Amino acid sequence: MFLGCQFSVYVMADSFVPVILGAIEAMKPWRDRLRVETDDLSTTVIGPPEALFPALEAAMVAAARSGRHVVMNLHLSRGCPGEPDDPSCDTPRLRDGAALPRAERDRAALASLREKPATGVSLAAQIALHPLGRADYMSEIAACIAFAKEAGVFLRSKHFCSKLSGDAGRVFAAIEHAFLGFAHATDHVVLCATISANSPSKAG
Amino acid sequence: MFLGCQFSVYVMADSFVPVILGAIEAMKPWRDRLRVETDDLSTTVIGPPEALFPALEAAMVAAARSGRHVVMNLHLSRGCPGEPDDPSCDTPRLRDGAALPRAERDRAALASLREKPATGVSLAAQIALHPLGRADYMSEIAACIAFAKEAGVFLRSKHFCSKLSGDAGRVFAAIEHAFLGFAHATDHVVLCATISANSPSKAG
Repeated sequence: MFLGCQFSVYVMADSFVPVILGAIEAMKPWRDRLRVETDDLSTTVIGPPEALFPALEAAMVAAARSGRHVVMNLHLSRGCPGEPDDPSCDTPRLRDGAALPRAERDRAALASLREKPATGVSLAAQIALHPLGRADYMSEIAACIAFAKEAGVFLRSKHFCSKLSGDAGRVFAAIEHAFLGFAHATDHVVLCATISANSPSKAG
Repeated sequence: MFLGCQFSVYVMADSFVPVILGAIEAMKPWRDRLRVETDDLSTTVIGPPEALFPALEAAMVAAARSGRHVVMNLHLSRGCPGEPDDPSCDTPRLRDGAALPRAERDRAALASLREKPATGVSLAAQIALHPLGRADYMSEIAACIAFAKEAGVFLRSKHFCSKLSGDAGRVFAAIEHAFLGFAHATDHVVLCATISANSPSKAG
């Protein structure tokens, strides 16, 4: 299994560099379990979702707490056949979760999402799930949308994506389950997300 | 056929709003052929690629000419079975192009890419092509990467994406062909791109 993301944080401010560095710094508690590499376009993070998602959430929450309008662009991928197998990415969520029926996996994800403590940081997001290499991928996407509605973070459908909103804890928990809980455990799955805080534009 | 994108322009500056409005304004010559709708997360653009791509390039070039560090996040989609058929999106590039062998399509795309006048705006980009619903999608991605190398805009492979660089005209021409020239004309294809100008970070 190879699992990780490319992500970028955009800060609509002249002094954008310290906000980005603060976001990267907030990932520190999980850094020893992640491979992290940054270039001028994005930061690559490779590792297990149990470290990856808390780190991404911490980065976004730290950036949002700057009070600036900030956006995280997130390109998550698992199981890409063009990438090498990397045991450091292995996760019981996929390894053992695959044995459970979908309804049970969804129930567990909903329970853990509802228990997440509120961060007080409100986010708007849009996500697009791409399960690759399978003819029935649209039914996986439909199941994922049904989950987001059940989770209370679904705002509306847009062309090519679904719009979410809610506290950062719940939004990231929903993105994590959207990424891990649909298609087969060994499938190649990509999830693209745009996650925004403090936008001066009217949400809707 | 339903074809279009979600895109956002991020401006790393306190005065980000005028730069974004200027980018949207630069799309004006093509606006009568496009359906455009903006919310707090992104702008939806639906229409034929002959109007969509010049409009996106003009928006990015206008934003880059502000001199600020700007990034366009682009989520292109065609043929999504969950979207209604929209004749306004029909394009000879897909309708007639499908009859040509791949090598001939690539040759025509390369010729038109090389003829594009230089804008003088230098861009870095990373793209990920997702042809959905087909088992052999990895060979389409490999063919697309070979095209980008041939086009002289390929910089290097990254995890989950390919990094491009070059003049805005060539980079957008390469993205357009990557989006239209691979997989079947009626397939559901998504292309995600991150396109950056004036980054203070060292490229590589």
